[in-house]
Amino acid sequence: MTGTTLDDYTDRYARRVRGMTASEIRALFAVASRPEVVSLAGGAPYIAALPLDAVGEMLGRLGAEHGITTLQYGIGQGTLELRERICEVMALSGIDASCGASPEDVVVTVGGQQALDLVARLFLDPGDVVLAEGPTYVGALGVFQAAQAQVVHVPMDDEGLIPEALEAAVAELARAGRRVKFLYTIPTYQNPTGVTLNEDRRERVLDICERAGLLVVEDDPYGQLGFEGDAPRPLRARRRDGVFYLGTFSKTFAPGLRVGWILAPHAVRDKLVIASEAQILCPSGYAQAAVATYLGTMPWREQLKVYREVYRERRDALLAALEDLMPEGTSWTRPGGGLFVWATLPDGLDSKAMMPRAIAARVAYVPGTGFYADGNGSGHMRLNFSFPTPERIREGVRRLAGVMEQDIATRRVFGAVGLPDGRRGRAGSDAPGPDLA
Amino acid sequence: MTGTTLDDYTDRYARRVRGMTASEIRALFAVASRPEVVSLAGGAPYIAALPLDAVGEMLGRLGAEHGITTLQYGIGQGTLELRERICEVMALSGIDASCGASPEDVVVTVGGQQALDLVARLFLDPGDVVLAEGPTYVGALGVFQAAQAQVVHVPMDDEGLIPEALEAAVAELARAGRRVKFLYTIPTYQNPTGVTLNEDRRERVLDICERAGLLVVEDDPYGQLGFEGDAPRPLRARRRDGVFYLGTFSKTFAPGLRVGWILAPHAVRDKLVIASEAQILCPSGYAQAAVATYLGTMPWREQLKVYREVYRERRDALLAALEDLMPEGTSWTRPGGGLFVWATLPDGLDSKAMMPRAIAARVAYVPGTGFYADGNGSGHMRLNFSFPTPERIREGVRRLAGVMEQDIATRRVFGAVGLPDGRRGRAGSDAPGPDLA
Repeated sequence: MTGTTLDDYTDRYARRVRGMTASEIRALFAVASRPEVVSLAGGAPYIAALPLDAVGEMLGRLGAEHGITTLQYGIGQGTLELRERICEVMALSGIDASCGASPEDVVVTVGGQQALDLVARLFLDPGDVVLAEGPTYVGALGVFQAAQAQVVHVPMDDEGLIPEALEAAVAELARAGRRVKFLYTIPTYQNPTGVTLNEDRRERVLDICERAGLLVVEDDPYGQLGFEGDAPRPLRARRRDGVFYLGTFSKTFAPGLRVGWILAPHAVRDKLVIASEAQILCPSGYAQAAVATYLGTMPWREQLKVYREVYRERRDALLAALEDLMPEGTSWTRPGGGLFVWATLPDGLDSKAMMPRAIAARVAYVPGTGFYADGNGSGHMRLNFSFPTPERIREGVRRLAGVMEQDIATRRVFGAVGLPDGRRGRAGSDAPGPDLA
Repeated sequence: MTGTTLDDYTDRYARRVRGMTASEIRALFAVASRPEVVSLAGGAPYIAALPLDAVGEMLGRLGAEHGITTLQYGIGQGTLELRERICEVMALSGIDASCGASPEDVVVTVGGQQALDLVARLFLDPGDVVLAEGPTYVGALGVFQAAQAQVVHVPMDDEGLIPEALEAAVAELARAGRRVKFLYTIPTYQNPTGVTLNEDRRERVLDICERAGLLVVEDDPYGQLGFEGDAPRPLRARRRDGVFYLGTFSKTFAPGLRVGWILAPHAVRDKLVIASEAQILCPSGYAQAAVATYLGTMPWREQLKVYREVYRERRDALLAALEDLMPEGTSWTRPGGGLFVWATLPDGLDSKAMMPRAIAARVAYVPGTGFYADGNGSGHMRLNFSFPTPERIREGVRRLAGVMEQDIATRRVFGAVGLPDGRRGRAGSDAPGPDLA
C-alpha cells in the first residue's frame, strides 16, 4: 500500500476540478451581492414575482397534512405524480407521447445540474471529447472538467450553433482519432448568449449528429421564457432516439427547491436511476411534492406569463440602455427570451482585467472567459436582466459604460490595458474552430 | 472519432454501476411496501413521531415570509446559519471547537449519500481499495462501485471492527502493492449490524490508520439514537486531522428534506465545495432553512428523546420476538441504538434464496448479501425495527420463523435448499479476511 497524505490527495484532485474558475465566480458573486453593487452577474429568477403567500400555504399543507409521505424517503427515479406533471410541462413545447415521451423515462434530479452530471457520469471517460457551443454554460464546463473530458467549442452566430462548423469539428476530431461522446447544446435562449438555434439549423444539427453516431444532450432551462411567441420546437420533439432532454423548475418556479429532470432514452433510464441513487439515494420527496402540487393546483401557466412579462420588460430596459450608453465598437445579442445578453467589447478591451475597476464602480458582470474551456472570451461579458429592476439595469449599464470609456481612454494613451502579453482581447478570436490541443 | 451507439454506452456503463444489487433491492422494496407485507426490510425513520402540525406551520412560514431567499439559489457550501446549527448538533457528541470543528469546514450535502459520494469523487481512482466493515452500508458499496474502487471488508464482532483484522488487512494490501485510500466506517449503531465500536478499539483503529497514512471516513447517521446512554465519542472527536465526519438529518429529523453534511479537513473543504457545485450547484435553500429553523426554534432535543423511546421499545419488541420465536441455531446482535438488528441463520439456510418464500408468507427483510461487495452474507439478514409497530414486528418475526422452520424441515428431508453448487450459507464464512482477488 502506498501511504498518501491529504496534500497528495489535494494536489491530485486539484488537477481534476476546475478550481480556479469556480472559485473566481464564487468570489465574484460574493462581491456582487453587496447591495451597493448593481449586479448584472447573476442568473437568478425574480422570485418576488411568485405568489409567495399562496406558495407558503401550499408548502405548509404538504408538511402538516402529507408529512408522513413527503418527509419520508422516496424512490430514486422520483414520484410518479411529479413525473406525470413533468410530461404535461414538456408537452407544452411539443415533447409528448407522439415522440415517445413518457413518465416512465423521466428521472427527477437535483436541479438541472445533477441531470447534467448524471449524463456525464454515465458516458464520459477521461480523455473523451464533448462538443459544445462556444461560449457555453459555465456549470457544464465544471461537470465535463470533473469528468476529465475535453470540451471542444463549436462557434455560434446570431442564429445559434453553426452547422458547418459542427460538421467540420466532427470531421477533424474523427481524423485525429478522438473519441467524441456527445454534443452538449442549449438551443433555446442560450446561456450565456441568449441566442436561439433557428428552425432549419435544428434539423441540420440533428442530422449531423445522427450521421456521426453522436448523442445529443439538450439542455433547456429557458425554453418556456420566450418573449416573442414560441421558440422552435426542442430537438427532443424532433427525434425519438439519441437525444437526452434536460429540464428544470429553477427558472420557471423556484431554484431553491432544486428540482430538475432528464427525459432519457429508454435503454439507459435505469442506469441513470442507479447512478442517481449512488449520488443522492433519492430526490427530496418534499420538494417533489411542492413542484407537483404547484403544477397540479396553482395557475402555473399564468405565472409563466408573469415571468415572461417581467423579463421582457427588463430585457428591453437592458437593450435600450446598451443602445443609449455603450461606447462605440460595442455590440450585443438581442435575445428573444431567457435571462441573458452577451456583449462584445470594443477592440482591445479585456472583460476579466476590467472586473476590479467595474466592482470599484459598483457594477458586476461575468467575464466571457468563464464560458470557454480554452481561455477565450476575454472580449465578451454576460449581462443578466432577470433579477435587477429596469432602473437598476440602466444604472448598471451607465456605470459599466463609464468604466469602459475610461479603459478606452487609458488604452488610447498608454496602449493595451490589462492584457497579459500576447493575449488577444478581440471577439473574433473566440471562434477559432475546434481546439485539438 | 469512433462512433458509438447507445448500446455500446450501456454495455460499458453496465460494468461501472452495481446494477444488479441496486435493482434487486429496489424490486424488493416495491414488494415490501405492499400493505399486507410486514416489512423488516426498510431503513426509514418513524416520521409519524414528529409534531407534523408544527413542522407544517414552520414550513409554510419559510415559503410565505422568507420565500425570496429560501426559494432562490444559494451558495454551494450551504448557508452559514445551518452550518452553525450543525456545529451545535455535533457538539452534543463531543465534536466541537476543542477539536477544531468549525462552521467554516462544514459542507452541506443532499443527505448522507451525497456526502459519501463527494468524498469518493474527491479521492477514489479506478482500481483503488477502500477498507470497510464487513458487512457495511449498501449505499456505500454502490458509491465505491461507481468509482470503480474495490472494497476489502474487515471482519467485525460484537464490539465492532476488529483492530487486529484491520492491521492484517493493511499489511497484506501493502505487501500486494495495492493503493488503499481510506477506511470507511460506521462506528456507532452500525448499518446493517447495529454493533458499536468500543472505546478501546476506537483509539486502536485510529492509531492503525494514522500509522498507515490512511484517511478515515466516519459515517455517523445513528450516533444520536442510543437507547442506553451515550455512545463512545465519535472518531472525529478524538482526532483533529485525517477524519472526514459524515452526518445527516435523515434519521433525526426527516429524510424527505435530503439534508446531510461533511465536516472536512480544512485543506480539502474547498475542493469538496467545488465538487458539490459540479454535481448539484447548491443544496436546497428551502430544505436548509427548514432544518436550521427546526433546530433553532423547535424542541429538537426533546424530539430526539421521542425517537429514542419509540425505537428502544421497538428494538425490545424485535429482540423479544426473536428470542421467543426463532428456530434453534439462529443468533442476532443486540444493538444499543440505531435502526437495525443483524441475524445469523441456522447452518445451511440462505437468506437470499429464502426471499420469495418469505414474501409469499408476507414478510420482508434484506438478505445479507446486499451488504458485502464480495458475494458473502447469504447466511445473514438485516431486520429493521424503526418503522413497523411492535405488534407488526412480532407478527413479522412469527411469519419469518415459519418460513425458516419450513426451510429447515425441507433441508432435513431433501438436503440443502436454494444453495447454488458450492455456495456456503454459513455465517462464519463471511469474515475470511481481506479479499485481494
